[in-house]
Formats: sequence, C-alpha cells, structure tokens
Amino acid sequence: MNETLSRWHEFVKTGNPEILDEILAKTVKFHSPFVWKPKEGKAMTIRILTTVTQVFEDFRYVREIFGEQNFALEFEARIGELTLRGVDLIQIGDDGKIIDFEVMVRPANALQALGLEMGNRLAPV
Amino acid sequence: MNETLSRWHEFVKTGNPEILDEILAKTVKFHSPFVWKPKEGKAMTIRILTTVTQVFEDFRYVREIFGEQNFALEFEARIGELTLRGVDLIQIGDDGKIIDFEVMVRPANALQALGLEMGNRLAPV
Repeated sequence: MNETLSRWHEFVKTGNPEILDEILAKTVKFHSPFVWKPKEGKAMTIRILTTVTQVFEDFRYVREIFGEQNFALEFEARIGELTLRGVDLIQIGDDGKIIDFEVMVRPANALQALGLEMGNRLAPV
Repeated sequence: MNETLSRWHEFVKTGNPEILDEILAKTVKFHSPFVWKPKEGKAMTIRILTTVTQVFEDFRYVREIFGEQNFALEFEARIGELTLRGVDLIQIGDDGKIIDFEVMVRPANALQALGLEMGNRLAPV
C-alpha cells in the first residue's frame, strides 16, 4: 500500500494529529459533506479530521479503491443510533502529501446528525 | 477501460435504458444517498438511474478510480442553481455485471434539492 495511506490508517487508529501534520500538504483543501466551498490549509483540516474521528463510533473501512494518486476509501460508522456510510476521496501530490481530501456521506438522516454533532464541536468553523 | 464501465459511460451519454438492462445484474442492489436500505433488482435500479440522469444538468465525471472489481466515479453536476459533486461506487461480479451501485452526494443543500426533485418524479419509490 501507498506509504501515505498507511500513515493515514495509523491516524484513524490512534487519533494522533502529528501524523496528519506529517502527511497533509500545507495547502491541502478539505471538501466537507456539508458545504460546497472547501476549507483550506493544514491547521483547519487537522482540526476537522481529528474532530470527526472522535464523533464517529465503530468506524471501519469497508472498501478501498486505489489509483495512482487518487484513492477512494469507503467507511461505515455509527453516529448515535444511525449507521452511515461515507467515502474519503484522497488525492496526493507528487511528493506523496495529501493535497485534496473530500468526504461524502449517506444516508441523508445520518448526514444531518453528523452535521449537528460537528456543528456543536466546531462552532466557529 | 473495463467493458462494463465503457457501456456505463455510453448510458450516461445516451440515456438509453437498454444499456442498463445489459450491464446490471438481475439482483443488483442500489444504495441511494437518501435512505439506508438498498433498493433491490434491475427494474427498480433502471428506473432510478434513468430518472437521476434526467434530473442532473451539465453532468460530467471529474475523477475515476479503478480497482479490479470496484470503481469510484466522481461527478459534478448542477441541480437548479446549485452545483454538486457525487460519487458512483460500482461493484461488478465475476461475470462483469454490476452487482452493487452506491451513490453519495455533497454538499447537503444540493443533496436536499436532489431529493425533492427525485421525490417529485419517483413518488412511489
């Protein structure tokens, strides 16, 4: 597996934000499931990703599709009593760092529950 | 490119449901962005896919990630005045037919607009 993805999986397992600091490009763009406009930069992206991994329960990847510089990692998780599926669409640059991170989630009621919970925790975002 | 995917792209271009009849497995499962429970069977899936391709405007794929039997096709489209991105997560069986078709869409306001429009057109689904 791609080294960056191995480190990403380690982040998911440990929640250690230092790993993100290492694998995210400085100018990474984060496309959330909620709003069209991407968030930019490493600090904001680390903040969002560390929060969302705390919100999800029983998080696990169920399908991984690997291209050369693009990866689709499908996950399943619980939020309260709802089960959801989502996908991380990750693009890495030539230096192996993540330059683009997009997340989509289904179904709609779980997306809404996730939005409420993220809003509570990231009020100023 | 995988033959089934070529035919899928032909369907997207032409809207010809006979192509879907050819490439979908009889027992295909369709996972919508709106509800957790998948729809089952070819007839229902053809109905949904032909409707959704009519609802989207300026539909185009922006990123395609190919595994062996799993594919992630990311698209961009308009619904009314909103731009959205989505992903088709497609799994094919050993005979090359599509056995699982999952769709996720972002951002939330476009997902909602899509749901309203699909609901109007597919009232009993």
